[in-house]
Amino acid sequence: MSSFTSTTRGKMNNAFDPRNLGELDSATRELIARRQRLLGPAYRLFYAEPLELVRGQGTLLFDRDGLDYLDAYNNVVPAGHSHPAIANEIARQAATLCTNTRYLHESILNYAEELLPTFGGRIAESGHLMFTCTGSEANDLAVRIAKHHTGHRGIIVTSEAYHGNSELTASFSPSLGEHSPLGAWVRRVPAPDSYRISHEHMAAWWAERVAVEISDLERRGEGLAAFIADSMFSSDGIFSQPVDLLAAVSSVVHRAGGLFIADEVQSGFARTGERLWGFQRHAIDPDIVTMGKPMGNGFPVAGVAMVAEVVAGFGRDTRYFNTFGGNTVAVAAAQATFDVMRQERLLENADRVGRVLRRGFSELAARYPVIGDIRGAGLYAGVEIVSDRDSKQPDGTMASRIVNGLRRRRVLISVTGAAGNTLKIRPPLVFSESDAGRLLGELEGVLGEVGR
Amino acid sequence: MSSFTSTTRGKMNNAFDPRNLGELDSATRELIARRQRLLGPAYRLFYAEPLELVRGQGTLLFDRDGLDYLDAYNNVVPAGHSHPAIANEIARQAATLCTNTRYLHESILNYAEELLPTFGGRIAESGHLMFTCTGSEANDLAVRIAKHHTGHRGIIVTSEAYHGNSELTASFSPSLGEHSPLGAWVRRVPAPDSYRISHEHMAAWWAERVAVEISDLERRGEGLAAFIADSMFSSDGIFSQPVDLLAAVSSVVHRAGGLFIADEVQSGFARTGERLWGFQRHAIDPDIVTMGKPMGNGFPVAGVAMVAEVVAGFGRDTRYFNTFGGNTVAVAAAQATFDVMRQERLLENADRVGRVLRRGFSELAARYPVIGDIRGAGLYAGVEIVSDRDSKQPDGTMASRIVNGLRRRRVLISVTGAAGNTLKIRPPLVFSESDAGRLLGELEGVLGEVGR
Repeated sequence: MSSFTSTTRGKMNNAFDPRNLGELDSATRELIARRQRLLGPAYRLFYAEPLELVRGQGTLLFDRDGLDYLDAYNNVVPAGHSHPAIANEIARQAATLCTNTRYLHESILNYAEELLPTFGGRIAESGHLMFTCTGSEANDLAVRIAKHHTGHRGIIVTSEAYHGNSELTASFSPSLGEHSPLGAWVRRVPAPDSYRISHEHMAAWWAERVAVEISDLERRGEGLAAFIADSMFSSDGIFSQPVDLLAAVSSVVHRAGGLFIADEVQSGFARTGERLWGFQRHAIDPDIVTMGKPMGNGFPVAGVAMVAEVVAGFGRDTRYFNTFGGNTVAVAAAQATFDVMRQERLLENADRVGRVLRRGFSELAARYPVIGDIRGAGLYAGVEIVSDRDSKQPDGTMASRIVNGLRRRRVLISVTGAAGNTLKIRPPLVFSESDAGRLLGELEGVLGEVGR
Repeated sequence: MSSFTSTTRGKMNNAFDPRNLGELDSATRELIARRQRLLGPAYRLFYAEPLELVRGQGTLLFDRDGLDYLDAYNNVVPAGHSHPAIANEIARQAATLCTNTRYLHESILNYAEELLPTFGGRIAESGHLMFTCTGSEANDLAVRIAKHHTGHRGIIVTSEAYHGNSELTASFSPSLGEHSPLGAWVRRVPAPDSYRISHEHMAAWWAERVAVEISDLERRGEGLAAFIADSMFSSDGIFSQPVDLLAAVSSVVHRAGGLFIADEVQSGFARTGERLWGFQRHAIDPDIVTMGKPMGNGFPVAGVAMVAEVVAGFGRDTRYFNTFGGNTVAVAAAQATFDVMRQERLLENADRVGRVLRRGFSELAARYPVIGDIRGAGLYAGVEIVSDRDSKQPDGTMASRIVNGLRRRRVLISVTGAAGNTLKIRPPLVFSESDAGRLLGELEGVLGEVGR
């Protein structure tokens, strides 16, 4: 299966298929029917048996019957579900003041002052931080700024990239499926498939792919505004190595006058262990960094950090105002989350427990040949499922059986990649060694049932 | 000044001008310098003397010195600042569960079930409600759906419309200033300036203006996707009458196969008194309704309601997922806000106190000729300031003096319209008669100083 092929309308990895409604219990059927009627046809549910959740705590989620599920998927709550200190801070600020960035408030400045240095490079030196509510808004704003700065429109992404749900960001999010239109000014490069392409010359080969697309954009009069990627290539299948890829691309992009946008919505905020930001594993100095999901431990807050120079013209010619973006409660949530992240040493935990997990996957791989490859960094792991290790043929059906088998055993993960055959494990950053043990034990159980 | 002219780069009504930094106290100067350094050049502050706020309660905001300001501007908190019941609900849910719409949860369905009937017409019969985080996201999604449904790209807006900050919505938001690019597929019709155009034939005249723009879009091969307007024409200058305008336009739009999108981000949720939704004053049945700002009393939550038919194809061909949109905490905030709105009878209050306010403005107009026109509905009032009642010449400078004079007297309003000469009064919906008295008293004081 080519990484450029996706043939199902409105497809989504690990989505519930409404044709299987008849197999569910009556309470779940009724909820789904209500949802269809009230929320309409554009929503999707996870799993063959969708899950109703009523409570969360730490790495656990609970259903209506009080059964606990180990959450090995939801990165949105890095500090764990319902973290009391963060919930308290949100409550305190919501009961004190909720106003926007057109009034002065110290908290947003204190937060920006703490966060900007963490990016290193030019952003740490003299960069700016802007606030939105969602990662989609962050990427939309980043590309607006890039287009204004460069005067060009072309965007280059990886073949199965996902960068957002606004019209602009959906236009360069091929993973939304072939019936979601891509912009004429969007070019795709293959995913850096480290399982199938030799690492040795990969960076040069990949940079050359980007250069070819830049030439094409220039030939069409578009020029390059930006290359945008997340350093873990989340929707392409999670590729964590080699880490010299982005530096090579960054040079090519800069030579063409384009900007390098590091989409850290998924890979940022300690997710990949070692360093706070995923792009730092690649030792690059991006022009713009976007962030979102884990920033407020579930509170809608996101942001865009950038080198000062790239936003100067945009700030002169227009303005940016987001009613809720960077409001006092959003900043309180973000500050509390960042504080907890440091106090509870979540970066170190991600690094340590991530290694435990990957070691466990390797041990399982020795016994279960459906595991073709194990990738990842920190608490972001991809386990690629294949029908045959020699041909490396993706096995999306088997991956789906594993994910749904785990869900029946009350462990929550999902799948990713063009063929939906890579297990996506991306737990809250408080995931413990004991949690890792539970995940590995249940995975072994499922593999024993379905994985030969 | 033509309503199509706006000549200042990055202009914003009632924005602080950094050239006046020297006139501020040192603490404020330092905060502004930090802001500039940390958040960059795209942010704007309100007022000649920007305001630092630390606490809010009901219709009052407090600065660092404990001085109270009467908030007659922030519609984002319809139930008043720091409403305890809403803050408690946010706190309760944040400490219980924060997950997204890919899991089942009853609360989002209960909320949709309560809200959908309030729209009346086809949406009440069998419409759907989708969730985003911001009004910009809601309008972006609404137009994506309209384009998918119609197969066309053309959008018609009023001359100074504002519909959002995403690339798509900014492309049809001319009020962002002439250096913020409009889409080639965007057409503008004049604002329905009820102060200068006779009401009698206005609807027919206006519908004809829309028809002309539709023809032009068709002539260019674009066709019409949607006409989008808020029923109060907020950024055009607040035009509340006549109320037969939108029905006439709706017919023309539907005949051309386009959709009518009612942008209720500002005018919705009881703002205009009488009815819950602003478009209902115009007795139309819109295809799509977008909402945002006041929906969660400051919590980032927004939505799109639509006739089922218009989203059927979109839902089949692609999907919509918003990590935070409609998450359990956002829904708790929206539900609590809607509950308070009904329990505290905010619709009735908006209607009643709005009339008190407009009566007060009329009394002032009898003595101060700078007041050219008084418009509005519910707690959304526009007071147009002119240099001369015969020529009706807009006086943006005088309007700015009034707004900043009120700010010095600790009453917060702003201005709107192409010439920035219409006072914009849009308080929390809990605004009392006593609050109205304070506003009117201080306005009289300011007019006595500056308004001849």
